[in-house]
Amino acid sequence: MSRPKILITNDDGIFAPGIRALWEAMREIGDPIVIAPDTEQSAVGHAITLTDPLRVIQVHRSGGFEGLAVSGTPSDCAKIAIKSILDEKPDLLISGINSGSNVGTNIIYSGTISAATEGTMLGIPSIAISLDSYKSDEFRAAKKAAIDLAHHVLYYGVSRGTLLNVNVPYCPPDEIKGVKITRQGTQYFKDEFDKRTDPRGRTYYWMKGNVVDKDESVDFDGKAVSEKYISVTPIHFNVTNESYMDELKSQFSNE
Amino acid sequence: MSRPKILITNDDGIFAPGIRALWEAMREIGDPIVIAPDTEQSAVGHAITLTDPLRVIQVHRSGGFEGLAVSGTPSDCAKIAIKSILDEKPDLLISGINSGSNVGTNIIYSGTISAATEGTMLGIPSIAISLDSYKSDEFRAAKKAAIDLAHHVLYYGVSRGTLLNVNVPYCPPDEIKGVKITRQGTQYFKDEFDKRTDPRGRTYYWMKGNVVDKDESVDFDGKAVSEKYISVTPIHFNVTNESYMDELKSQFSNE
Repeated sequence: MSRPKILITNDDGIFAPGIRALWEAMREIGDPIVIAPDTEQSAVGHAITLTDPLRVIQVHRSGGFEGLAVSGTPSDCAKIAIKSILDEKPDLLISGINSGSNVGTNIIYSGTISAATEGTMLGIPSIAISLDSYKSDEFRAAKKAAIDLAHHVLYYGVSRGTLLNVNVPYCPPDEIKGVKITRQGTQYFKDEFDKRTDPRGRTYYWMKGNVVDKDESVDFDGKAVSEKYISVTPIHFNVTNESYMDELKSQFSNE
Repeated sequence: MSRPKILITNDDGIFAPGIRALWEAMREIGDPIVIAPDTEQSAVGHAITLTDPLRVIQVHRSGGFEGLAVSGTPSDCAKIAIKSILDEKPDLLISGINSGSNVGTNIIYSGTISAATEGTMLGIPSIAISLDSYKSDEFRAAKKAAIDLAHHVLYYGVSRGTLLNVNVPYCPPDEIKGVKITRQGTQYFKDEFDKRTDPRGRTYYWMKGNVVDKDESVDFDGKAVSEKYISVTPIHFNVTNESYMDELKSQFSNE
């Protein structure tokens, strides 16, 4: 069997430590192709670039790491890779390794997940993988998880329209308790705005916030990671609230 | 009863024709407060601004239109309005009137919907409203829909964690056939990239695409609008693919 072609992207940008770790891991099982944003794109959500042209340049880093840097968002990278740059569809798209977890309600802001969503919509089995830390000194557990999940998806595929959102605890590999198939939990940022005055007397605001996680079961993504499980959540983008359809219909029929 | 406080935002920016139309409509039923991006923010998805400070300035337009312009995304506007600028929670958040429909898979790119999602997450009953046209010469049907839906939500509320995504056909009010409670359909952009060379010989790409809509029933958002119904879709952001959980668990138990 020929080696699988694995498209790698991320939202921390092509120069981030996490994408190099992912490239190293994927090199062990296939032929990775790196196409990623030229700058950090955290919290861009599912943005796409319509009003500016996209530039694509070749990047070489030490150790043989090569890739294409795109002047756009993670979604742009996945789209342009699959629709224009690659001659054939990759066997797998994997986005990460993100610096910081992507769990709970905050996943709607995640560029890491949005790239995997694009892949999914374009018919490529896709994985988003994040490490529950902003440090970059311990990628061993995340690299192993990336390899295991990539093997898994290359073997089983993924349900149509669905991607796997993987979150890995920040610890040595031997402390990982195992894999939990989880649900999106309720973890969220409690936002606040820090109001300041600049040297010219004008007001400006910084967004800040604390993570709040009230989930008590490791059946939920954030809690599973905090208990040192690798969390694997199947997510899709069918956002209709089906359970509310009938009530809403009856409200309108009364009017 | 005191007049409802209605927070108005959008993604086309505070100077767009649609937000003025919405402000005019909401003035008939309550006290509108406009807090919107200072520039167009289409296709920003659920982006939030973490790396730059936010600025807020007062804007005055003709006809008594006043508002606050924020140097950020629609999500930023909803967050900063509710968490920092307003003294009390508004009774309703309404985002729009967007130029162009927000239906099918493309809603994940929508700044209009992301603002309403923020409102929902912060406990404010929220509506996103879009007109199925890029023209701005016929807002009468959309203004009437905005008033009707605002009344509806102020009376009934909305299910926790859910917002109403409203799409209005581009036609005179008397051609509207009625309201349909719909599901998110499958309409999508078939993306292509137009590869060009700049005057200095460098390659760049423009994203372009055609809308593809294979839905055949007016139970789906895009089809309902094309058949001249006002489409009302209850959407939420619980994206776990519940129906796939068991299969995935059994795959992992086999390993």
